[in-house]
Parts: sequence; structure tokens; C-alpha cells
Amino acid sequence: MKIALAQLNFHIGNFDYNFSKMKEQIGLARQDGADLIVFPELSVCGYPPRDFLEFDDFIERCDQVIQQLAELSTTIAIIAGSPMRNPQKEGKDLFNSAVFMYGGEIVAAAHKALLPTYDIFDEYRYFEPNTSFSTITFKGVKIALTVCEDIWNVGNDNPLYKSCPMDILSAEKPDIMINISASPFDFGQAQRRIDIVKANTMRYGIPMFYVNHVGAQTDLIFDGGSLVVNARGIVVDELPYFVEKMSYFDLDEVKDVNNNKTNYVQSKEKIALIHDALVCGISDYFKKLGFKKAILGLSGGIDSAVTAVLAARALGPENIRCLLLPSVFSSQHSVDDSVILCERGDIPYNIIPIGDMVNAINHDLFPFFDGKPFDVTEENIQARIRGLTLMAMCNKHGYILLNTTNKSEAAVGYGTLYGDLCGGLAVLADVYKTEIYELAKYINKDFEYIPLHILTKAPSAELRPNQKDQDTLPPYDLLDQILFRYIECRQSPSDIIEAGFDAFTVNRTLRMVNKNEWKRYQMAPVLRVSTKSFGMGRRMPIEGEYLS
Amino acid sequence: MKIALAQLNFHIGNFDYNFSKMKEQIGLARQDGADLIVFPELSVCGYPPRDFLEFDDFIERCDQVIQQLAELSTTIAIIAGSPMRNPQKEGKDLFNSAVFMYGGEIVAAAHKALLPTYDIFDEYRYFEPNTSFSTITFKGVKIALTVCEDIWNVGNDNPLYKSCPMDILSAEKPDIMINISASPFDFGQAQRRIDIVKANTMRYGIPMFYVNHVGAQTDLIFDGGSLVVNARGIVVDELPYFVEKMSYFDLDEVKDVNNNKTNYVQSKEKIALIHDALVCGISDYFKKLGFKKAILGLSGGIDSAVTAVLAARALGPENIRCLLLPSVFSSQHSVDDSVILCERGDIPYNIIPIGDMVNAINHDLFPFFDGKPFDVTEENIQARIRGLTLMAMCNKHGYILLNTTNKSEAAVGYGTLYGDLCGGLAVLADVYKTEIYELAKYINKDFEYIPLHILTKAPSAELRPNQKDQDTLPPYDLLDQILFRYIECRQSPSDIIEAGFDAFTVNRTLRMVNKNEWKRYQMAPVLRVSTKSFGMGRRMPIEGEYLS
Repeated sequence: MKIALAQLNFHIGNFDYNFSKMKEQIGLARQDGADLIVFPELSVCGYPPRDFLEFDDFIERCDQVIQQLAELSTTIAIIAGSPMRNPQKEGKDLFNSAVFMYGGEIVAAAHKALLPTYDIFDEYRYFEPNTSFSTITFKGVKIALTVCEDIWNVGNDNPLYKSCPMDILSAEKPDIMINISASPFDFGQAQRRIDIVKANTMRYGIPMFYVNHVGAQTDLIFDGGSLVVNARGIVVDELPYFVEKMSYFDLDEVKDVNNNKTNYVQSKEKIALIHDALVCGISDYFKKLGFKKAILGLSGGIDSAVTAVLAARALGPENIRCLLLPSVFSSQHSVDDSVILCERGDIPYNIIPIGDMVNAINHDLFPFFDGKPFDVTEENIQARIRGLTLMAMCNKHGYILLNTTNKSEAAVGYGTLYGDLCGGLAVLADVYKTEIYELAKYINKDFEYIPLHILTKAPSAELRPNQKDQDTLPPYDLLDQILFRYIECRQSPSDIIEAGFDAFTVNRTLRMVNKNEWKRYQMAPVLRVSTKSFGMGRRMPIEGEYLS
Repeated sequence: MKIALAQLNFHIGNFDYNFSKMKEQIGLARQDGADLIVFPELSVCGYPPRDFLEFDDFIERCDQVIQQLAELSTTIAIIAGSPMRNPQKEGKDLFNSAVFMYGGEIVAAAHKALLPTYDIFDEYRYFEPNTSFSTITFKGVKIALTVCEDIWNVGNDNPLYKSCPMDILSAEKPDIMINISASPFDFGQAQRRIDIVKANTMRYGIPMFYVNHVGAQTDLIFDGGSLVVNARGIVVDELPYFVEKMSYFDLDEVKDVNNNKTNYVQSKEKIALIHDALVCGISDYFKKLGFKKAILGLSGGIDSAVTAVLAARALGPENIRCLLLPSVFSSQHSVDDSVILCERGDIPYNIIPIGDMVNAINHDLFPFFDGKPFDVTEENIQARIRGLTLMAMCNKHGYILLNTTNKSEAAVGYGTLYGDLCGGLAVLADVYKTEIYELAKYINKDFEYIPLHILTKAPSAELRPNQKDQDTLPPYDLLDQILFRYIECRQSPSDIIEAGFDAFTVNRTLRMVNKNEWKRYQMAPVLRVSTKSFGMGRRMPIEGEYLS
């Protein structure tokens, strides 16, 4: 039996697009003599469809695409993911299903049992958990078909769940496992995915065919990395990251446990993965919204420099415009370094000094400031004039503004709402400042794309004379460690202090994090590359007093 | 037996505050001879605590407060809501529990079984559903104790759930039901709450004591309206809306089904409720964040006028500042009407013409506009200069900016991001334009607070000559009906067209709604007064293509 795994980039709710993409691959697979083609979880509608699932006609469209797919299944079996209506009156209306089609009709459906409802996942909001399981026999091969999370409780060792679907299915002595997934990227996920698929194959003693989404859906990035692992836990193949790919596998070869040949297992180097994920995230954001051109402000600092390079790689430098927006507090090197970067990258840019605009604002508002001295107000006015200028260029020329905030400053609220926090997509807001330095070095590995001076100078917002980030914030290497423990690891202040961090700094930092929830609430979607990103995956009360 | 229902306004994560508030009421109740005092759901930590629940020390603090409460229960029984750790390794870590304390210790705990995971609710994100139920006997009275949603599946007629906790508990023949809730306001909720409590009392033939939260938690407003309903379904008492209140009930009197005396059932007139809810929402937002003073821009239109009045009622007119920010396109009546409003309301105001600031921006950016004509760019520059001015006053003087966007324009994206969409709290963004007119009339019922001209003139953004909202949008009475069917009722385009609406207008409107998800993503939290508000309760893909 020849099995095709189709790791594709779907568009949420774009049924015609998704169907024609699947149809094309089905045609190719049939032509190449495949017996079965497998698409990922909720492939007909894209993942995550969110509250579109509450619209009856959205489900109707899913049903229609499944019917259309079934019609294509006369001589090739098809597995596709789709929401299916729950026939029971009680419980949620839908199942999250893997639909098995053959001979022109729907043969079986495996509904998802373990519904992730944590971090960015809201599956129990929509779906009823499955409680009945059975294998599907196709051309004499008994298949244990599951959806995503259902294989993540190997041997009941995942404390989130009470059941293990594969334990139940294994009683029927299946020959192979097939899992269809929508497993979003973070820089550790590819390895965890391999580990869990291996653990399943070794526990049940049969191979697994695992197919994942690829491509970004706003904040969520899917890296692909679909897998075939044999019964001894050896990775037969790992499909590429961030690229659409269909691969064929001969079942006999996969079942041959003496065949130790691993075709392809990719590097899982953190910074390289983050780099590629961000490029994918930018690229798909524009494609799926139907835009081509991005604009951003280059401050002379490392965050905007890295964003510019990533954007140029995602969209082509000719589709990027950088604005250099110096104020009276900007140093000459900020402009010079930015110009060098743009010239090295062939990125079009303009220099628009903001001094006169800022002066006009300050002049007209001064009478209403009651004689109070220069403070954060005037700092923010500069940041907001920059935001306004960038947005004006968007409106006039059809750009989308990229936000360049990093995770460290987003965490502590070191940024101006409606100023440097403007933008349609926050490219780096899940990357800590210390990681951005690594990212810059990675970008520069073959060629000094980003002028070295940008990597070596002290970070500054340049909103008042001789300002440095470190006047206000703890040093970034310290700050990022505290933030990681709090945000990613959910350690308490006392845990962090016990680990050796200064109590005053810890308490001050965590207070800043909690007190700035209101700012993050209004931030653009953040490309998610860690296990805990700001946005849908981290839901904190705005008025909460905890730790304050 | 004398039972005290304590309908209080808690602060999320502010354990000391919540505990001292409860302690004070326990002291009063004990003094007044109460046998039992009942606090609402998750009273120790406030509702909704969201991802604070993922922090171990947050749960630790909850446990500590429960211990402190238990110590106060020597001579009075206490029911309070708290997260409790799930002792089982499998399943979610926590229960959402009603803890029964007496004699200085925890006597029993009833865990919540039906976990709302829809709209604004995420309970299955945190909590394990309860599966074992038993009554609690106190001073000879057998109590069926439940948490919120557990009573919302009377007779298994709620399609969301498979079990009915009260059906199970009723087998033990309880004498009374007690339910602790965190049931957020929408303008129809008070009546639904009465209906469901009545349905329970009539099904089980015993009275129910129901206690709810009161006060706002950012976007979510709790109206109180705690209830005592007798075994015949007669409302013995309904506690007031939007006010903290402790009331005592003699159990014998409540059990006397011949006592048909209804103490207090309040008007459920929609617009009056929305008015009071919004005032509560503004007031608590400021109190809980530790701020006092609000600023807003008065455009001369009805939305900002109504917002100003609500803010003045919530915070006192002396704590409000209105800015009138006329541009060259503003009509004189916009300024005049706004001045009259401020003078009638004793609201401090300033007039800051924005013409020179806008000119300075246009002048400096013109060279970068490639000779393209006046368009939405220049319109947005005006809106953004207003946003910038309002934010500058916030920074300089410590105001919080109130956003005045209405639900109709938020829905179709008729507003400028970082311009009129600025603000820390969106006061009216869950109130349709047509409802805002009703709200204005309600405000004016005894006295023409809002100048009549504001209610009668055609709505206009005044960002270009002779602009009217209706040049761009369908008439609001039509638009609001389409939006209500799509947003609140989740009807499909074909449903709406079949109901008699013009197909072109329906499709165009729904496309605008879906295409502006990115704008709403960056909006301030919206005070929720309907069954489907923008924000956490409505989660839509930004890049989704459905209906477009």
C-alpha cells in the first residue's frame, strides 16, 4: 500500500481554495498510484476556525467539501479533517473528525477524544469529546485513526486527560496508526512531536503516519514536520518545515523494522527555527489578507533592524519600505546604521525628520499642560507622531505596518501605546531581547547584513537626552531570565527569588508585567514562537491585583 | 434558621481586600444572629481570575483565605467560592468549588459539574468537572449546594450538557437549594436568572437561595440580583442590581408556601439596565485600577455625548474632562452642542482646535504622498491627532481616556485605529447606534441633559466636507438589524436575506464585519451588555475568508 501525506497550507474559511488545493494533490497522488492520501486536522476549513464554527452555514460548507472530496475517492482513499455534527441532542454540537472516504463515499469517521483547552487552544468551546473508538480496515490494513492530541496521552501519563484513545484502539490489534494534526510551532515543538510519535510507535509496536499543517494563521505558525516513524521508533521520514510537501510511503518498507534508513531529520536549532517561523508568519499574514507591501520604522536599534530583514526575506525587499523618523533626540548613528542596513538589503527607505511635527504638537498643546515639565508625555508624543506617520503611509500607499516590539519590552510595558506599539502584526513580540541578539547574529552569519554597531550599542528609545533602556529596566540578560520563569514557567515570585534572583528586582519586574496587561490587550497579534506567547494563549485579568 | 446572602463586589487577585470585605460581613451577620452566610462563586479570588489560576501561589493564596474564613466559622456557617486542588493526578488541576465551613473548619465542598466554555467563559480551561454529588446537612437542614451553571440544565433541557447535578442531588431529598454564582450581566440576564431559579424550585419542590457577584471586572459587569425563590416558584426577594447588599432570610418564612409576599422585584427595562450597567462598568474600572479621572473627546455627536454623561455619573463630573477638538471640517454646531452639554453637566472642558497640528503633519508628509489626492489618509490624520492629543492629556495629567465607539461602527470598522479607537475602556462598543439614541432619550427623560440637536442631526465623522455616516454605511436602523442577526443570533447571510433584507446590503455588511476583525483585535476592552459583545466572548479569525 502506498500512502501519501499531504502537508499543506490551508486558509481558514476559504473553502474553494482549500478544496481545490486538496483536489490537485488527490489528482497527483492518484496518478502516482497512491492508495490513500492523508490531509491534516480540520483541513477542509483551516485551523483554527474559532467562532466561525458557531455558524451553521460554515458547518454546511464543511459538509459540502467533504461530499466533494468523497466524490473524488472512487479509486483512492482520502482522509481529511472536518468538523462533523454531533447527532446527540446533548453535549456540544460538533465533533472534530478525521473522515475516511473511499469508493465515492464516507466510509468512517474518527472523532477527536482529547480536546486541548489550554494556552491557545479552545477546542472544548466547540467540540464534544469522542468516547467510542474503532479501527478502519482498508485493503486488508487495519488502521487506528486519531486526531492530534489523541496521541499525546501515551500510557495515560499526560495529567490533563483521563483516557488514552490509542490504548482502546490497540485492543483491536491495528497494523498502523494514522494521526492528523494541527500542532502549532514553538521552537521546541518539532522535537516533542518526534518524541511523542516515537513513544506511540514503541508502545503499540506499529508504525505511525502523522500529518501536520504548514503555514501561518495570523499569530499561529504551523511548521509541518509531518512524520513517518516505524514500529521500532525510528524516524523513517520527517517532512520539511515551513514548506508545503506531499510525500509517498510504501507501507511494506515502513513496516520493515530492519530498514533503519532515516531519510531526513532536520536540525532543530532554536534560533534558526525561530528565524524561519517568523519569515513564514510574515509571509502568510500578507498572502492570506491579500496584501503585498510592508512598512516599518527603523529606529537604529536591533529590533527594527531584525524585523526589516525578516520582512525583506518574507516579502522581497522591493515590497518593504523603511521609514527613518529621527527626532531631536536621535543620534546620528541611528540614522547612519539604518541607512547602511537598507542599502545592504536593497530595501527602499525614506528619512522623515519628525522634529517640526513634534514641535507643532508641543506648541499647540503646551497651554493645556499647566506648566508641567517635560515628562513621558513629550516622549510619547514623539513615538505617536512616528506611529501616525507610518499609518499615514499605510493609508496613502497600501502598506501594512509591522510592529517591531520585542517580548521583553512587551512584557514590562516599555513602549508607547498608539506609538511604537502600532502595527498590524507584531513580528518579534514573542522573542526576548537577548534572543533577538542571537537572531541578529544568525542573520549575519554569512554576511554582515545588520551593521555590527546595531548589535553592540546600548539599547535606547531615544525619546529624551542620553536615554538608555537600562536606566529604567534591569539589564536584559537578567530581565529575560526573570520573565521566562514567570511567563513560560509560571513560577511564583518566591520561586524566582529562591532560584537566586534579587527580590526587589523580581517583584518590581512582575509588577510591571501585571500592570501592563491593558497595553498588551490592545497590541497586534503576536507571531508565536515560544510555549507562552502574549495574545490568545495568555489570558490575564486587566484589573487583577495579584502580585501588585 | 437565618440565612444571609452577601452579594459583594470582589477584586480579582486582591486577596486581602476580598477577605476583609467578607470578614466584615461575617461579623455583621454573626451579630445579627445569622446561622449561615453565603458568598458568591470564586469569591476569595474574584471572578474571572483567568490564567492567574495557572499560578501555584495564586491557588495557595486562595487556600489561605479559605483557612482564614474557616477560622471565622466557629459559630456561623460560611459558604464561599474558591478554586480547590483536584487530588486526582488525571484531569485538570482544579475544581471550582463551593466550600462549606462551620465550627472552625471546612466541613464539605461542592465542586462545579457544568463548566461553561462558550462566549466569555473558559472554565474547562482550568477546572475538572465534578462527577460526585452529595447534600450537606446543617442544623437539621439538608442543603443541595451547587455552583452557578449547575442549575442551568433543569431537566436536562440544556443541549450543552449531559448531566444535571440537581437531579442527582434531589434523590437525597434536600430541604433547600443554595447556588453560588458569577453570572455576568446582559440586558436579558436578570429575567433569565429568575426563570431558571423558578424552574429549579418548581421541579424539585424546594426553595432556592441564589447569590451572585455584583460590580464590574473590566469588560464583564455583574449585576447582582441575588434571589430567594420559594418552593412554588414565587420570588421571595431579589437583591438590588449594581449595589452591594447583604440580606437575611428566615428559612421558615421562605418555606411557608402560603406566604406569597414578594419583597422586591425590579424593573427589567432594557435601556435603564444598560444605563446602570455602563455606569457601574466605568466606575469599577477606575476604582479597581486605582484611577479617578477620565478624559474623552466630544465630537458633537451622540456617542461621545452619552459617554460623557455616563462617565460623569460614574465618577462625578468634577473627575471628567472633555476635549472639543474641532478641525476645519467640524461644524460650529458640533462645538456649540458640546459646550452646552458640558455646561449643563458641570463637566470641565477645553476647546483645542487641531487645524494647525493637522496642517503641520500634512505639510511634512505631503512630499511622501507622491501627489496622491486627499483620501482616507488625511481623514485618519485628523482622527489620530485627536487621539494623540487626548493621550497627551492623559500622560500629563493622569487621566484615563474613554473610548466612545458604538457597536455598529465597531462592527463594520467605521473608525480610525489609533484615532477615535484609542482609549482604555470602550464604554459603548456593545451598544448599537439605534440603542444609543434610546439611551440618550432615557438620560434626557427628566431634563434635557444632552442637547436635543445632538439627537436629531445626521451622524457624521466630520473628517471631510459634508460627510455623513450614511454616505458610507446603510441607515443605522437597517444596519443594526442585520448586525444583530449576524452577531447575536449567528444567522447566515442566506438566513438574513430570507428574512427580507436586501442581499447586496447584507453581503456588503457582513463582509465589512469580517474584514475588520484586525481593527477590533486592537480595541480596548468593551463593557459587555448584550449576549454577544466584541472581545473575549467573540473569537474570530483575523485572516478568515468565510463570507468574504
